[in-house]
Amino acid sequence: MIKVNGERLMADLRALAKFGKEGAGVNRLALTQPDIDSRAWLLARMREAGLDARIDGLGSVYGQTPGVSRAILIGSHTDTVPNGGWLDGAMGVIYGLELARALLESGTTAAGGIDVISFADEEATYANTLGSRAFVGEVTQAELSSAANLGGESLSDALIRAGYAGAARAGLDRTRHQAYFEAHIEQGPRLEAGGKRIGIVTGIVGMRGTEVIFHGQADHAGTTPMGMRKDAGTALFRFASGLITAFEGLAGPNTVWNFGRVVFEPGAGNVVPREARVHIEYRNPTEEILDAMESAIGDAVARVNADGVVRASTMRNYALAAVRMDDDLAQHIEDAASRLEAPAMRMASGAGHDAMHLARHVPTGMLFIPSIGGRSHDTAEDSAEADIVLGAQVLAGAVQSVLSAN
Amino acid sequence: MIKVNGERLMADLRALAKFGKEGAGVNRLALTQPDIDSRAWLLARMREAGLDARIDGLGSVYGQTPGVSRAILIGSHTDTVPNGGWLDGAMGVIYGLELARALLESGTTAAGGIDVISFADEEATYANTLGSRAFVGEVTQAELSSAANLGGESLSDALIRAGYAGAARAGLDRTRHQAYFEAHIEQGPRLEAGGKRIGIVTGIVGMRGTEVIFHGQADHAGTTPMGMRKDAGTALFRFASGLITAFEGLAGPNTVWNFGRVVFEPGAGNVVPREARVHIEYRNPTEEILDAMESAIGDAVARVNADGVVRASTMRNYALAAVRMDDDLAQHIEDAASRLEAPAMRMASGAGHDAMHLARHVPTGMLFIPSIGGRSHDTAEDSAEADIVLGAQVLAGAVQSVLSAN
Repeated sequence: MIKVNGERLMADLRALAKFGKEGAGVNRLALTQPDIDSRAWLLARMREAGLDARIDGLGSVYGQTPGVSRAILIGSHTDTVPNGGWLDGAMGVIYGLELARALLESGTTAAGGIDVISFADEEATYANTLGSRAFVGEVTQAELSSAANLGGESLSDALIRAGYAGAARAGLDRTRHQAYFEAHIEQGPRLEAGGKRIGIVTGIVGMRGTEVIFHGQADHAGTTPMGMRKDAGTALFRFASGLITAFEGLAGPNTVWNFGRVVFEPGAGNVVPREARVHIEYRNPTEEILDAMESAIGDAVARVNADGVVRASTMRNYALAAVRMDDDLAQHIEDAASRLEAPAMRMASGAGHDAMHLARHVPTGMLFIPSIGGRSHDTAEDSAEADIVLGAQVLAGAVQSVLSAN
Repeated sequence: MIKVNGERLMADLRALAKFGKEGAGVNRLALTQPDIDSRAWLLARMREAGLDARIDGLGSVYGQTPGVSRAILIGSHTDTVPNGGWLDGAMGVIYGLELARALLESGTTAAGGIDVISFADEEATYANTLGSRAFVGEVTQAELSSAANLGGESLSDALIRAGYAGAARAGLDRTRHQAYFEAHIEQGPRLEAGGKRIGIVTGIVGMRGTEVIFHGQADHAGTTPMGMRKDAGTALFRFASGLITAFEGLAGPNTVWNFGRVVFEPGAGNVVPREARVHIEYRNPTEEILDAMESAIGDAVARVNADGVVRASTMRNYALAAVRMDDDLAQHIEDAASRLEAPAMRMASGAGHDAMHLARHVPTGMLFIPSIGGRSHDTAEDSAEADIVLGAQVLAGAVQSVLSAN
């Protein structure tokens, strides 16, 4: 029986939060000194717990239960965004540490062990979800060679600086690893709004994005008659208003979108905008609606160009496919929540996680706990201690039943 | 008879353009060294022409025809915007120099003289239209004490540095000054589009402006359901689209508006905009339409607040009243153009000029010549040499007939 020690779990989370502490939050970007120091600390805690642990060649901290041929992998990431929160990522890793420790304390690993991992650089300081993609063999040497941070330091140099370069790369072992679990704060308001304490993640939404650029002409805004203007800004307003109405007609219950960045050039009150740009990001659990939204963008761009006054084009197009979590693992989480009488709901994750890469290679389950006020990626990020502990207990129950079922 | 010397006029304009020359354009911000040097040059040219000239305590260069009790004032400004053009303002001053010189050469000032002025700091380096407002007594000591440039240098310090501080202030003399004329490039495309070479300015449009701020809430754009957002950006798109449609319904033939600056905060693709701002500027020759447009803005702001999701407010509201040019002087310009068979049209000025301050105190007339491609406030600003010379000849004809009529 895996028995979570709530006090020890909270103590480890608070100890980890001291690395890069910044007010109530944490600044622990990948391969900065606080991140490097926190990995040394985590390595030591894994070894104290009895795990066979090491830091791999990209900085992922990986601990294996010794003496077993089969294990469930539990993890997430311990790096943060700038001025991030103390739980995002960190909580899922410490859940893994606590559960592996509790399993070893239980004295029996006959049904299999628990391996724990803190994936390197989830937050894209050098490369987005670097550790988890490398773990499943989806990072190329070319990407590793070209990756650099905003300060211009190459990933290769940073790994040498950290002392990780040359160490063996950790990787998924499909013979050993029966499943991957990742627990995370919700980063949204739905659990709180619904009065639930556990979210059973059914999938991670697909995300697409594009930047639409309107090419007009700068003119004096006092002396140029309206009919002689090529006003990139007005074209953008009308495009965006119309497209939002179109999106509302296409949306399913879990569809979201954001027009988060708008830039006008030259951006002066008395100059007609020469250029205007808007960044559009949209997410949905299924690809069909994303396809329809992408078509709507294309149609709206074509209408601007058919008008012929301002030219519109798109750039920086990107797409991340939607990922489904494993149904069987979701049921184990739901049953574990039910046994602990924890109010739970199934939900899609609107944000990306390391789990989306693991899910393509191994049965993967995700569990959410409520975020206070839905806040995350911010120093105000927090969750109730009771919810943090309950989440670990529900995950322990799910892991236990998966191990028993094998 | 005032006989313009076209070659001398062009030579003076080209000599002036060397001060602060930057590629094809000019960088001659008020009280920078190129501006100070150009004023010393202009003072010398005025004295060579036989004018009684000086630089006043704010930097305005002022030359008076000696031995007359009545005069027509001709001028504009010789400072520029950053990376400005060679004609804006400078042309109107050199017209004055050439006409005063030609009048003195004609040997008779019996009907009155020509005074010439280059007003200080029209382009708002320290204070918008400083010299012309001071000339008509509309600048307070408080404004002079607090004015500073973007680099933080106070106007007072700059005037000491330039050697102007302490000199007597030039001012309008309603006994002496019978009229004020300002010639300027059009800074727009209407003369060129209409095949005209002279614009007779009927008035300077009134201008109002405001910044509308939408106060929403930053949320994760993947994890926050659409119905739980307070999206400042979407509120702005819909407000702007609706308001532009309302403006189109209210506009007269000379109404213009511009939504020239838009800022989203925090401006990230995956964060719902917490705040969005738009700067709205609108101009018209009569106040009635400006009143209606201002009401439309107020109504649109009230509708956003009535919806209750995002809060809207306005700030930085400003208004410049429309100014009519003197009808009699306009007729003199039109007749002079007609005598020279110069195709002319009456038109409103969409941009502000020193003339708008003079017009409240003395009969004022303005004349435009075509801007190539409508360009101005840009190094590409230019006009055909034939148009520059023709403009001076038309102005000479108008000044001659005004002097004769008195």
